[in-house]
Amino acid sequence: MTLMEKALDGKLTPLMGEVAKDEGVPEKVIRKGVAAGRIVIPRNVHREHIRPVGIGEGLRVKINANIGTSPDHIDIKEEIEKANVAVKHGADTLMDLSTGGDLDEIRKEILKIPVPLGTVPIYQAAAEVIGRGRSIVDMSKDDMFNVIEAQAGEGVDFMTVHTGMTKESLERLTGRRHRQQGRLTGIVSRGGSFLAAWMLHNNEENPLYADFDYLLDIAREHEVTLSLGDALRPGSIKDSTDRAQIQELIILGELVDRARESGVQCMVEGPGHVPLDEIEANVKLQKKLCSGAPFYVLGPLVTDIAPGYDHITGAIGGAVAAMAGADFLCYVTPSEHLALPDREDVKNGVIASKIAAHAADITRRGIDLRRDVEMAGARARLDWEKQFELCINPEKAAEFRNSRHPQTPDVCTMCGEFCAMKMVKSYLKK
Amino acid sequence: MTLMEKALDGKLTPLMGEVAKDEGVPEKVIRKGVAAGRIVIPRNVHREHIRPVGIGEGLRVKINANIGTSPDHIDIKEEIEKANVAVKHGADTLMDLSTGGDLDEIRKEILKIPVPLGTVPIYQAAAEVIGRGRSIVDMSKDDMFNVIEAQAGEGVDFMTVHTGMTKESLERLTGRRHRQQGRLTGIVSRGGSFLAAWMLHNNEENPLYADFDYLLDIAREHEVTLSLGDALRPGSIKDSTDRAQIQELIILGELVDRARESGVQCMVEGPGHVPLDEIEANVKLQKKLCSGAPFYVLGPLVTDIAPGYDHITGAIGGAVAAMAGADFLCYVTPSEHLALPDREDVKNGVIASKIAAHAADITRRGIDLRRDVEMAGARARLDWEKQFELCINPEKAAEFRNSRHPQTPDVCTMCGEFCAMKMVKSYLKK
Repeated sequence: MTLMEKALDGKLTPLMGEVAKDEGVPEKVIRKGVAAGRIVIPRNVHREHIRPVGIGEGLRVKINANIGTSPDHIDIKEEIEKANVAVKHGADTLMDLSTGGDLDEIRKEILKIPVPLGTVPIYQAAAEVIGRGRSIVDMSKDDMFNVIEAQAGEGVDFMTVHTGMTKESLERLTGRRHRQQGRLTGIVSRGGSFLAAWMLHNNEENPLYADFDYLLDIAREHEVTLSLGDALRPGSIKDSTDRAQIQELIILGELVDRARESGVQCMVEGPGHVPLDEIEANVKLQKKLCSGAPFYVLGPLVTDIAPGYDHITGAIGGAVAAMAGADFLCYVTPSEHLALPDREDVKNGVIASKIAAHAADITRRGIDLRRDVEMAGARARLDWEKQFELCINPEKAAEFRNSRHPQTPDVCTMCGEFCAMKMVKSYLKK
Repeated sequence: MTLMEKALDGKLTPLMGEVAKDEGVPEKVIRKGVAAGRIVIPRNVHREHIRPVGIGEGLRVKINANIGTSPDHIDIKEEIEKANVAVKHGADTLMDLSTGGDLDEIRKEILKIPVPLGTVPIYQAAAEVIGRGRSIVDMSKDDMFNVIEAQAGEGVDFMTVHTGMTKESLERLTGRRHRQQGRLTGIVSRGGSFLAAWMLHNNEENPLYADFDYLLDIAREHEVTLSLGDALRPGSIKDSTDRAQIQELIILGELVDRARESGVQCMVEGPGHVPLDEIEANVKLQKKLCSGAPFYVLGPLVTDIAPGYDHITGAIGGAVAAMAGADFLCYVTPSEHLALPDREDVKNGVIASKIAAHAADITRRGIDLRRDVEMAGARARLDWEKQFELCINPEKAAEFRNSRHPQTPDVCTMCGEFCAMKMVKSYLKK
C-alpha cells in the first residue's frame, strides 16, 4: 500500500505523525490531507532517516534549493557544499539538476544528505544519449523510463515529469495563427525544451503522457511523489498566463486525478515569470483545475529586468504566491539567467525564499507569528543577543551590527542616542 | 501663487511640462493631478536645475533613499558618496536624516545634488537643544518652527512633519485600558518619539498640529511639499493596523484637506511593519481617508525576523503596496535595525526598492512593460550585450556571467549546451 492508500484507509503512519508534530497540527489533519491528495510527504520507500517534510494545505510553506553540475562546470565537492549550505540556511528539500559529469555518482553523494531529494530524470536521459554521440531527439522511450526507474530504485523522493506538454498543449505554442498566441520566449523549461524537440522531430505524443500509467506504476512501487512539471511555463512577463500555459495546466489537473486514483502522491509545478497582479489568479486557477493539489512555484519572478537580483524578484513573487495558496517555493539565486550559482548565491537564494515563505506563513497560520512577536519584544527591550538568536541569519545580523560601534552599547549606529526605542523606554513608560 | 494654485487656475508651468514628458503622460494629466492634490512635484522655490519628479496617481512609482550622519558616525564625505551612489542606482529623491555633526554644513553639501531633497526638521531641533546641554523635552515651539523656516529658506523640497500625533491619537497608545490596544513596540519613529516625549513631559498638544497654519504659511512661502509623517506607525508585525495608527491616519486626512485649501502640496507617510495580507487594506484606507493624497510608505516590512535582509522584506512589502496604489517607496537597506548603512548597503537598498517599484509599475502602467519585453526578446535571441544594457544593474549582471565561462559563448554556465533557449531556436523555429 502507498502512503496515500494507507491514509485513505484511516491509518496514521509514523511519518504522518512526525509531520504533524513538526507542523504543530493534529495528526488527523495530516492523514486527511494525504488521503485527499492536498498534502504530500515526499519520501521514497528506499530512504530512511530523512527529515519529514509535508507540503500542502494548512502547513508551513516549504522551500526547495536546486543544485547540480552543468556541462560547463563539474565539481562534485562544490555541489555537495552547496547542498549543505542550502540545508543549513533553511532549504526543506533539494533538487539535483546535474547535467554534467558522472550523474549517478553525484546523485549518490547528494542522497546522503538527510532531506527529501528531487530530480528531473529527463536531464539524465538526455545527457546519456548525448554521451553516446547522438542527439536528444534520438532518445527512445525506454531511455526515458529506464532512467526514471533507476532513480526511483536509488531512493529519489520526488521527480519532475513534464507530463502536461502534449500535442494538444504544444499546439498552442507552435500551431498556426490563432492557435498560438505569439510568445516572446517560447519554452524556457530545460526538460520541456528536450521533450518539445523530441515530439516535434519524431512527430509523436509525449511519452510521459502517453505512458502515464507506466509512470504511475513506477511511482507506486517506490513511493515516488510526482511533481507534474510545467514545460510551457512563461519565460517572460509578457508571456504570462497565456493559452499554452493554461492548456498545459488543464492537462496536469486531469493527471492529478489519475495519480490519486492510483494512490500516487503528486504536486503541480507552476510559473515562472508572472506580473504581480496575475499571481493570485494563477494560484487560484491551479488550486481549482488541479483539485487542490500542492502547488510548487518556480519564483514567480515579477520582472524580467533584474538579472543579478532575481532572488529578490523571486522573493516578491513567491511571497505573494504563497499568501494566495502556493505551498512550495523553488528558490531563485542571484545568478539565475547568468551563471551556475556558487555557494554564496545558494545561501542568498535560500534566505530570500525563506523570507518569502515566512512572510506568507504569518498570514496563513497564526502560530507562525510567534517568532516575530518574540523578535519585536527583544527589539523593544534593546536585547541584542535575543534578536540575533531569533533572526533568520544571526551571522549576517551580527556582522552588520558589529561593523560600526555605537558609543552606548544598548543602541545601534543608525540613530545612536536618538534611538526611538530608548526614548520610549525613558519617557513613555515612566 | 503656489504650484497647486497655478494648476487650479489652469496654468501649465514648465515644471509640470517636464514631469509630463518624463512620465510619458499628457500635460493636462499632471496639471489636473497637481490641482487635485493627487500628484505632488516637490521643488522648493529656492531650488533650480533639479530633476523634475512627480509623485502620485498615474505616474511611475518613485523611490527615496535616506542618508545622513548619526551621533555615532559622522563623515560628510561618506554621506555625499552614499547620496551619489543612491542617485546613480535610481533613487528619485534623497532625504537627509543627519543627526550628528554640523547639520547645516552637511545639508548644504547634499543640496548640491540635483534631485529633490527631503528632511525631518525635528531632528535638527532636537540635536540643537541637546547641543545646548538641555533635553529634548526642553525644546521650545520656536526651536521647532525656526528650524523648519530656516531649512525652507535654504531650499529643502519636502519635509516630514509629524502632525498627526495629537493628544487624541497618542491617547490610543498611552491611555488607560481599552483606549490603548496594547502595543509591543510603542513608537519607532525617531521624530515621533521626540514629540511624544515632549508632549507627555510638557502636557501640551503637538505644536506641529496646534500651529499647523503656521506650518502652512512657511510651506506656501517657500513651496515646500509637506510629508505628513506617521509617528505612530507600527514597529512590528503584531502592532500593525491598530487603533493608534489609524487614529493618526484619520487626523492626517483632515490635515491633507487643510493643506489643499491653502494651496500647499502634501503627501502622507505610511507604515512600517505590516503583514502581507494587511498591506492592500492599509493603502486603500490611506487613499480614502486622505482624499487620494500621494502615499509614501516606509517599507512596508513583511516580517520582523530578517535583520540583515530588510531590503528584501521591504521590497516584498513595497511591491505589494505600490501595486495597491502606494506612490512613493522609502528604501530600506540591509543594515536597517542594525547599523547606519554604508555605500554598499545604500546601493543594495536602492536596487531592491527599484525592483519593487518597477514590478508594481508594470501592473499599473502598460508603457512600463516595454523594457521587460525588450529584455525577453534579447534573452530569446541570446543577445547578452542587449540584456546587460537593459538590466537594472549591468555591472552586477556582467559580474555574474563573467565569473564562470561557458564553453560555447552564446549560452551561460547554468545549462551550458542544454540551454532551453538554444534548443527552442534550433528545433521549434525551424
